[in-house]
Amino acid sequence: MQLTTVKIDGSTSAGRVEGDEIVLLDAPDVGAVFRRGEVAERGASLSFADAHLAPMVTAPDKIVCVGVNYLDHIAEMGRDRPAAPTYFAKYRAALIGARDDIALPDPAVSTHVDWEAELAIIIGSTVRNASPDEALAAIGGYTVLNDVSVRDYQRRTTQFLAGKTFEGMTPLGPVVVTRDELGDGSGLAIGTQIDGVEKQTSNTSELCFNCIDIVQDLSRIITLEPGDVIATGTPGGVGAARKPPEWMADGTVVTCSIEGIGATINRCRLPL
Amino acid sequence: MQLTTVKIDGSTSAGRVEGDEIVLLDAPDVGAVFRRGEVAERGASLSFADAHLAPMVTAPDKIVCVGVNYLDHIAEMGRDRPAAPTYFAKYRAALIGARDDIALPDPAVSTHVDWEAELAIIIGSTVRNASPDEALAAIGGYTVLNDVSVRDYQRRTTQFLAGKTFEGMTPLGPVVVTRDELGDGSGLAIGTQIDGVEKQTSNTSELCFNCIDIVQDLSRIITLEPGDVIATGTPGGVGAARKPPEWMADGTVVTCSIEGIGATINRCRLPL
Repeated sequence: MQLTTVKIDGSTSAGRVEGDEIVLLDAPDVGAVFRRGEVAERGASLSFADAHLAPMVTAPDKIVCVGVNYLDHIAEMGRDRPAAPTYFAKYRAALIGARDDIALPDPAVSTHVDWEAELAIIIGSTVRNASPDEALAAIGGYTVLNDVSVRDYQRRTTQFLAGKTFEGMTPLGPVVVTRDELGDGSGLAIGTQIDGVEKQTSNTSELCFNCIDIVQDLSRIITLEPGDVIATGTPGGVGAARKPPEWMADGTVVTCSIEGIGATINRCRLPL
Repeated sequence: MQLTTVKIDGSTSAGRVEGDEIVLLDAPDVGAVFRRGEVAERGASLSFADAHLAPMVTAPDKIVCVGVNYLDHIAEMGRDRPAAPTYFAKYRAALIGARDDIALPDPAVSTHVDWEAELAIIIGSTVRNASPDEALAAIGGYTVLNDVSVRDYQRRTTQFLAGKTFEGMTPLGPVVVTRDELGDGSGLAIGTQIDGVEKQTSNTSELCFNCIDIVQDLSRIITLEPGDVIATGTPGGVGAARKPPEWMADGTVVTCSIEGIGATINRCRLPL
């Protein structure tokens, strides 16, 4: 099943994707669908192509990102293979829909804006101190997250957060594919195109720590809740690692796609 | 004015501290008091000494922590003086009340549990791209946060988050003192006692980046909202920097106090 979240009538609604249509559900977002388990239809539908997509979860309790988690990205960033998953956070105001514009910072703040295609887990049920089986069972589904990174802010101190949580810069969508269709999330082609040119291409089987590992490990630290978003890291091919480095600028269109899910397609826009 | 948040009747309520009493307010927590601006009284009060204190903000949109921000702590941790504030996050499930037990992790997970007394800003009004004056005006008040840290998890990768957001380990309270009483938060004695023995003692004037600097800088990255919690960093004297290192264990009582605000007093407890 493919779920999504749309902006409609000044609010948001979850929906179930059926062919070219979104059948609206009586819940504000995909997180609420997982929390409630069973959700009625609203009796209305709209065109998927024309819908204004919201972030799949509009106000997640947690957004956890895993860094340095693809072997090829680890190599290009010059890091050692990690012994444990590297976690950092984003705040919810960072999130935008799968087709929204990315709000570039004022150029006086930064011009070092980079792309990172990532498979994101959406937690489906509450889980704490999970076994591997329980970790898998707690995964509600998967979506695409473009972990757009302001590299000079990411690197101005030891901690990534500042460069990872700029407002309105993190696309999340376009749909959440439930776990029954994608299993543990491995074996999916993942990639990024910048203005139609391929920049990242890999496969989720290249993850150092897979989705089960991550959910299990995180659940030893804190309870995971339905709607929590966990971005699992990005493969090689980011702009910062290119020679010379490449950054996104006003008008750049970035497409992050994952096999079996779809793509976020976002245009970068300078502030007016 | 001193505001607080209490657990009562299976829910929470904001209150205004008047002498030994808490006058209950018609808002669920201090964050809601700042969001609403004016809040009616519920017509009931209770004893401050007997109240079950909740985290001052029960569900903040953001918890931002500043690391390596006291000159003496920077020295003891062997770090260089930073050119920019170091930010990391906590999730809300980390928060507990000012008198609650700290939920130690299972000893098989970690025994390296450390204390960190911190002055915490509670944002009072929405602010983005703030000038210094706007940054100060956006501060609603100040409270105490004990940034209890699981050091081996903090240090297992480059990113602090894992060791900083263990569930039920971060006391926040006991009151929020509004900005009109404490100005920019400088000049306040701050310290930690472990089982009555002084371990940290400093003054908030020792901050590398003061409260105005931090709010101004963060507001360039993301909009700050009423109820957001910003912990400003801890002075020297943490357990990890002692020779030999000192950790909190089952039964340890940790007191973090700030002049003009009060203290969090929490007993560490192993899981049953």
